[in-house]
This record gives sequence, structure tokens and C-alpha cells, in this order.
Amino acid sequence: MNVADLILRKRDGFALAEAEIVYLIDGYTAGRIPDYQMAALCMAVYYRGMTAEETLCLTRAMVHSGSVLDFSSLSGLKVDKHSTGGVGDKTSLIIAPLVAAAGSSVPMISGRGLGFTGGTLDKLESIPGFTVQLTLPRFRQVLERVGCAMIGQTDEIAPADRKLYALRDVTATVESIPLICASIMSKKLAEGLDGLVLDVKTGAGAFMPTLEQASDLAQSLVDIGNGLGTSTVALITDMNQPLGKAVGNALEVREAIQTLKGEEPQDLSLLCEELSSRMLSLDSNASAAGQTRARVVEALSSGKALQKFAEMIAAQGGDPRVVDDFSLLPQASYQEVMASPSRGFIQSLNAKGVGRASMSLGAGRETVDSQIDPSVGILLNKKIGDWVEKGEPLCTVFYNQTAKLQSVRQSLLEVFSIGPDRVEPPPLVKRMVE
Amino acid sequence: MNVADLILRKRDGFALAEAEIVYLIDGYTAGRIPDYQMAALCMAVYYRGMTAEETLCLTRAMVHSGSVLDFSSLSGLKVDKHSTGGVGDKTSLIIAPLVAAAGSSVPMISGRGLGFTGGTLDKLESIPGFTVQLTLPRFRQVLERVGCAMIGQTDEIAPADRKLYALRDVTATVESIPLICASIMSKKLAEGLDGLVLDVKTGAGAFMPTLEQASDLAQSLVDIGNGLGTSTVALITDMNQPLGKAVGNALEVREAIQTLKGEEPQDLSLLCEELSSRMLSLDSNASAAGQTRARVVEALSSGKALQKFAEMIAAQGGDPRVVDDFSLLPQASYQEVMASPSRGFIQSLNAKGVGRASMSLGAGRETVDSQIDPSVGILLNKKIGDWVEKGEPLCTVFYNQTAKLQSVRQSLLEVFSIGPDRVEPPPLVKRMVE
Repeated sequence: MNVADLILRKRDGFALAEAEIVYLIDGYTAGRIPDYQMAALCMAVYYRGMTAEETLCLTRAMVHSGSVLDFSSLSGLKVDKHSTGGVGDKTSLIIAPLVAAAGSSVPMISGRGLGFTGGTLDKLESIPGFTVQLTLPRFRQVLERVGCAMIGQTDEIAPADRKLYALRDVTATVESIPLICASIMSKKLAEGLDGLVLDVKTGAGAFMPTLEQASDLAQSLVDIGNGLGTSTVALITDMNQPLGKAVGNALEVREAIQTLKGEEPQDLSLLCEELSSRMLSLDSNASAAGQTRARVVEALSSGKALQKFAEMIAAQGGDPRVVDDFSLLPQASYQEVMASPSRGFIQSLNAKGVGRASMSLGAGRETVDSQIDPSVGILLNKKIGDWVEKGEPLCTVFYNQTAKLQSVRQSLLEVFSIGPDRVEPPPLVKRMVE
Repeated sequence: MNVADLILRKRDGFALAEAEIVYLIDGYTAGRIPDYQMAALCMAVYYRGMTAEETLCLTRAMVHSGSVLDFSSLSGLKVDKHSTGGVGDKTSLIIAPLVAAAGSSVPMISGRGLGFTGGTLDKLESIPGFTVQLTLPRFRQVLERVGCAMIGQTDEIAPADRKLYALRDVTATVESIPLICASIMSKKLAEGLDGLVLDVKTGAGAFMPTLEQASDLAQSLVDIGNGLGTSTVALITDMNQPLGKAVGNALEVREAIQTLKGEEPQDLSLLCEELSSRMLSLDSNASAAGQTRARVVEALSSGKALQKFAEMIAAQGGDPRVVDDFSLLPQASYQEVMASPSRGFIQSLNAKGVGRASMSLGAGRETVDSQIDPSVGILLNKKIGDWVEKGEPLCTVFYNQTAKLQSVRQSLLEVFSIGPDRVEPPPLVKRMVE
């Protein structure tokens, strides 16, 4: 096969055959096909798209570019959740121990944050001693003992995706639905799952602003998962405002623990319960969704989910006492309360703005090389639909450097829009795609 | 400037500014910008195109990626001709000495053949001893002494084009009008010309099959030339059938010499006279086209043009006696006459088919590494509109390997379409663009 001819065919709008896609991905992973040919192909895919069949073949080729984990020796369902990314989204920290406490296994491989969205690995690393870099044998041990384990990407898992993503990042070819789908799904399907629940965010703070765009992306992802033999459903959920109240790594770990303790029932708890019960329902032998919801509630109220989280922390080298003593988490030196300049209802709360402010404080990465400060971030005192008096706290900023506080002060006030009209909080789960 | 941002802007259909284009071309030429980013950009340009202003800036940046020759010390006009490529097109060999004999200087830098079209350098190298690899100082010496010189690309001339063309060739990004225009014009404008005549081929054997496509390409090229200060016009000429009767390197040199001798007035002579008089007319002080035509005819009929060709051959290391003794040119071992299977008028004569057959005999390159056999090729006995009796020669094949003859025998018969209807030969010059 001639690579230039394959690029030409895609450039001119023709579909590539499975053998051709395998040839491209295998050759690229092994270094036989150079970056410049793959970059031209990615740009052609950006314009021409891929058929559902091509996207399925691409994902399968990327899954098989490395090791596919086999947890069939573990009892129970092997399930995972993936979110397309949002601000304040710490659901993974809650869901993994929650679903494990309810009897399934959760072998979760996550990513780091970049830009205004946080990353699960960065949040976990704010727990003293916690390591996300386990070998695959050690990952299996933790899974067997605890029922859940949360690690970062390894060289063995979907190496084609790592190489391809780095290339797309510098060639303006990230925003291509088939390439995004293959990237997401190749990593997840290499985990050897029985089932996968996708949390596709929509709204002003999401990659897919409209419900239709999010639904199209969700349908592509779900079709790939089911097409490759993993039961997959997607929930389209709101990302107009941050999820929960905490944004920033240690602050989000604290909120996750509070949620596992059943404190402050709110949007975050509801979404975690919804996602978890969907994960447990993916077993074809499982009881109906109503019954799985009862198992989820029981795992929370009994304290088993919190205990699983503590066990996983201990198994991955962290200090499990953090679940009872938040002072063991990194603490910012200073706090500043942002008082409301007016009274009224919160009309909107710009998630991207909060995410960017948190990043500017040091909680996120502006570039891949940025160092993260685990202690800084923002606690929201008010969310959409809440009433606020003039002078009442809108949010609290946790910071270590005064210069950084000053850089975000004005923009943080602007993320809140306050007015006289009563507004309802946006519904959290907008649609299910299966 | 961030290269990924520039790719993104072009991807999304925005025009790049001159400073951005200069940054990209300078960075790519110097190796600071990697092939994979330039490949993605070229694919985005393939889909999005470039404005006239962008194409002008790109060409200028590519011209200035290397040396720009300065022949201002030479007396008279410095002019050149460029053809977009065809089958049997040996006009450069005739025009360079012809225009030099008429008093202008022709510093011609040419290319090699690839695929079914021949290359001027390959044709010249079939002359024993002739070298196309002169240093720039030697190029200047020959120009000063003879008035014309014909060499190959040097490392100093438009290095950005050489690097970019090699990349486009393997990334399916050759067929982009702005990139084609910038590639052609950057090399020619680096010759330090006062004027340039473009011969844009159209018809079944041309890169641009329709007159409209060819006219659009011609207009872009002319606008770039004039925009960058070189008087430029284009002739749109026919490439439905091969030009002249000879296809193959030494065979074409022989036909060029015959044309310089004024033998066999035909399509080739007419086109050379037309192109040459246009070149001489580019001088704003020059006499009208009618008068330059008279100078061209005089240069031919006086034998001065032929003498210039002999002088240039000698100055570039070749044996000038070839102009009087064709037996000094490489000779194929065998000839086979292809007899007509029927009687009638030649309805069409597939230029691409003749070009491919000649390439298969060894006269052209299937890949850039192919070795050329200078002696083989095809002489056409009949052209469009000619009457042929059954059994009369259609063409004569000059070959060295019987296996290669056999591979082209059938396809060569098929390039001729013979029928009862009288047809006119296609008009040679279809349009002028200025």
C-alpha cells in the first residue's frame, strides 16, 4: 500500500477500508509511517470526516496498537465511566469507590487536565503519597483487593493514541469528531471492560455547546463501544455552570469525600448516583435501573463507598486518614471572599470563566509543562437560581500568590450574572443515548 | 507566533498575513518548523485555497528563501519561458537559442521529467558531454558569452520550493493551485528576469484539461509575475495531442535541431515562433509584436539561432557537431513501425497515452529514481486530421528491449482513434492571458 495514495483517497472524500486503516495505524505506531504523512491524513479527515464503519475500524486498530487488558478472572462486572471534561467534575473520585462498593470492578485509566478543565490524576495526586503510576500487574492487584483502582496512561495502553494525539495537538487537527471518538474509545476499550458509561457534557463550559452536537458525539461514541463489544450508554449532562461547588484539586478531593459521606445532597451527588446506577445496570443479568439505584444509595449510606475510597488510597500509597482529616490535604495560605456587587438571582455562572480563573491561580496547566499547585482553587457559594444579597459571598478564592489573586479578581466577579428574574437551575441530565 | 495557531486559522478559512507567511516559509526552510506542521498546513491550503494576496506573499517568501540572481550587468532584456508540461514539448531547446539570437538573454533553469511528461534537462543530457549542472558563476559566464544557458535547479535557488515540493509529493497536496503557482513562479522569479512567458497547456494530455481551468491557472501565474515586478504573459496552448512528431529525449533533440534549421514547418515551429516573439515583446521599449515576429523569423532563416544552440552546447561541455550529425546522438538498437489497422482520418491522438508508452520504453521516469534511456521513444507519422490508409505507418517505435516494445504495442495502437469524418487539427494557441 502507498501511504500518499491513501491520503489522496481520503482527501478526495472516499472511505478507507479496514485493512488500509490497520496499515496506517500499525505503520505509524511502529514509526514506519512518518509524522508528516499522518498529519496530512488527519487534516484530510478533519475536512472529510469518516464513516461510522471507518471510525469503528480506526478505534479497533488503535485499541490493538498496544495491550488489551484482560480482567476476566475478576468476579463481577468490569465497568468504567468517561467524561468529556468539565469544570469541577470530580465524579470519577466518587463513582469508582461507589460502584466497587456496590459489587462491580472499576479499572479506571484517566488523564491530566489541560486548559480550563481539571484532570482526575491531578486531583488524586493532591492526596499525600497517592501515586497514579502503577505497573499493570500492580493495577491488577489493587483491583483484585479493593475493586477499584485509578491510574494514568501507560505505555502499553493504546500507544497509537498517545502518538497521534501529540501530533494532532500541534497540527490543528484536534477538533475532528471521528478522531476524538477513536481517541477516547481506544483508551477505554483497551481496559477490557464489560460496560462503559459516557458522561458527555453540554453547555457553555463544554467542548460541545449545544445539545444536538453533544448528542451526535455521544451517539458516535456509543456506537463504537457497542460495535466493539462493550455495552455502552451515554448521559448528556449540563456544563453551563461548574459541577458541585469546588474547583481546584485538593478542594475537589474534599468535596468528593463529603459526597461519599452523604453530606450536602446536591447536583454532584445526584449525577454520581445516576452515573453509578447506569454502570451497574450495564450487566445484561443485572436488575433494573431502579434496583441498581437502591444498591448505590445503600453503598453510600452504609459508609462502604467511603471505606472503598480509603482502601484504594492506601493501596495506591496515599494516606487514607484524609477521609477523616481534611487538614492532611494541601492547604492554600490565603482565602479571599468575593462579595456580591448587587442583589438578585444568579442568572448564569460561566463555567469556562471559573475554570480559567482556577487555572490562573495555579490549579491547572496553561501548557503541558506547567506545574500544578494542588491547594489553590475556588469554592462557589452561589450557583444558578440562588438568591444573593449585595455584599454576600459569591465565591471564596484559595490562593498562595497575591499577584495571581489580583489577576483573577475582576474576571471572577464577571462569571456571575445577577438579575431580578427568578431562574431555575439547568436540569442536570438532559438526555440518555444508547 | 505559534505555528499550530496559524494552521488553525488557515484550516478555518482565514487568510494569513504576509509576516505570518514569511515566518512559516523561513522557519520551514531553516528546519525550525517541522515537516508535519507544514504537511497539515498544505492540506488545509488544499481545501481552503489562498487569496491572490496570500499567494503573492507565499511566492515572494519562497523566492527570497534563497539567492535571487542579478543579471542586470548583462545587456538587453532578460527573459524566460515556462511550460506547465506536456508530451513532446521540446520548445525550450528551440526558444532559448532563438531568443538569444534575436538579442535578448535567456537564463533558463529547468526541471526533469516525471511520469508521462518529459523534462528539458533529460533531453539536453542526451547530447554527448552536455552538462546541466553549472555553478552560478559558470551559468553567468555562459550567459554573457552565448546569450542563453540552460541548467538544472541549484541549492541556492528557492530552497523552500524544493523542500516543500518533496513534502507535497508524499502528502497528496500537489494539486493545489496556490501551491502550484508559488512553486512555479518562485523558481522563475529567482532568475532575476525582466519578463516571463508562460505556456499553459490545456486538453486531454494536460494537467488542466479544460480551457477555463487553464485560463484560471494562467491568470494566477500572470498576476503573481506582474505583482512581483516581472512582466508576465501566458499563452494557453493545445495539449490534446503531442507537440511536434518526436517523443523521447534524443529524438526530441533531433526535432529541435530540425526546427532551428527551418525544416518541416509545423505546429512546433509555429508555437516556438509565437512564444519567442512574445518574449521579445515583453520589453516595454520593444517594438510591436509584429516586428518581433520578423526578428524571430530572421534569427531562424539566417541560421543564427542554430548557431547559438551549437555555441551553448559547446559552452556547456557538449559536442556541438550534433547539430550537423545526428548519428552522434544516442541511437536505439531497433525500430518498429506500427501500421494502421484501418483507413480514415485521425480523430484524436491521446497525448497521455503516447507519453506513457514512451515512459514505458525507458524515455521517462516512473519514480524519481528511475534511470532514463536517452535513445528510445516514438516518432509520430500521423497527427490529428491526417488521412491514413490501412497498413500505412501511424508511428515508429525506437526501442532497445523487446519486452518493453511488447508492453506498449497494444496501447500505442489505441492512442490513435481513426474514423471516416474529416476533422481539423485543434488550434494551437487558444488564448492569451495578460
